Amino acid sequence: MKPKAVCLLSGGLDSSACLACAIRDGFDAYALSFDYGQRHQVELEAASRIARQLGAKEHQVMKIDLRAFGGSALTDEIAVPKHLDVNEISQTEIPITYVPARNTVMLSIALAWSEVLSATSIYIGVNAVDYSGYPDCRPDFIQAFEKMANLATKNGVEGITQLKIHTPLIQLSKSEIIQLATQLGVDLSLTHSCYDPDAEGRSCGRCDSCLLRLKGFGEAGMNDPLTYQ
Amino acid sequence: MKPKAVCLLSGGLDSSACLACAIRDGFDAYALSFDYGQRHQVELEAASRIARQLGAKEHQVMKIDLRAFGGSALTDEIAVPKHLDVNEISQTEIPITYVPARNTVMLSIALAWSEVLSATSIYIGVNAVDYSGYPDCRPDFIQAFEKMANLATKNGVEGITQLKIHTPLIQLSKSEIIQLATQLGVDLSLTHSCYDPDAEGRSCGRCDSCLLRLKGFGEAGMNDPLTYQ
Repeated sequence: MKPKAVCLLSGGLDSSACLACAIRDGFDAYALSFDYGQRHQVELEAASRIARQLGAKEHQVMKIDLRAFGGSALTDEIAVPKHLDVNEISQTEIPITYVPARNTVMLSIALAWSEVLSATSIYIGVNAVDYSGYPDCRPDFIQAFEKMANLATKNGVEGITQLKIHTPLIQLSKSEIIQLATQLGVDLSLTHSCYDPDAEGRSCGRCDSCLLRLKGFGEAGMNDPLTYQ
Repeated sequence: MKPKAVCLLSGGLDSSACLACAIRDGFDAYALSFDYGQRHQVELEAASRIARQLGAKEHQVMKIDLRAFGGSALTDEIAVPKHLDVNEISQTEIPITYVPARNTVMLSIALAWSEVLSATSIYIGVNAVDYSGYPDCRPDFIQAFEKMANLATKNGVEGITQLKIHTPLIQLSKSEIIQLATQLGVDLSLTHSCYDPDAEGRSCGRCDSCLLRLKGFGEAGMNDPLTYQ
């Protein structure tokens, strides 16, 4: 029997590549997505398609309404910032699209599921290279979470198993992630990255997420299979 | 203007006393409860009553369906264990009423709200004395969470503020908590502790939570104002 891993899956490039890494590493993958009141709900459909395409054992969508707290352009009635060029994206400021404590909340819920499943691994597609503005994407944060998680659960306390948080993409550029995903057989036409898609689900091409995606495809010398507005 | 604190509030004795401590300590209290699919939903009504009685600035009930994962008698279709006597409760085994990673999930969501509110304090009524069976009630866990939280958020990263997790009850016995709550003006008749109340919301008197509550009142030389079945 294969070991189990809970894999956070938004349906974007990074989390899809990350799920493929878990399967490559020999795990039965339990994909976990969040309906957290994001305005781009179309990404949940992308997550379903990717979980099915890659052969996840199970896919759960956990509903949690972080909109009640507000504070982010992804959940609040704040406009998603648009740019003409990828170089306009700040490399130092924390973007307005940051959702407060999102990775902490998602990893905590992944921890709950992993405990029920007796899974000893959690995969998260965080990346410290192209998106250094998010505090909860940094290696220091991931290490601190892993340490806390091992004190939080039955298995950690009883010394039966140690939970590991896997971050296979943390040091990769977007173009390297696209190349890795392609090698691992991810159908990139099924993914979704845009923060502000139109009613037909087509990507805007001008939000931070679209611009970084397009830059990554450019650097990888590949065409993005998505349809843009 | 008073500083703000997010206070986890289940509506039981401990979290009610804890909310009263936050107010005593000079904070504007933002009470946070969870509808996590627990079978004793009546505790959410107790939380509302206590938030109102003690004068919390706001009370949010966050819905998150941990039942999707199963694994606990409080959320699953597993019978809540009953005893004739408080001495029958194991002091070493982790009880079946443990909800996987519950405090981690709740603290993470409290962290999200505290970030939006610019609150630098979170209060949680964990207790390491009477309920040593829960791994996520121990001081080591709380310290590890605090460290992780300060790496997870904008304010922590930018060095603006350090978040503190307050655990005013962690070294108190149940009878000391009851006495403290009484001194701080908590109306204990508004609280709810039972894991398995009847349809009228009356406590069973035989689950771990009821037995520890009744023992605490006994040791404090006080009468429990609740109605038992």
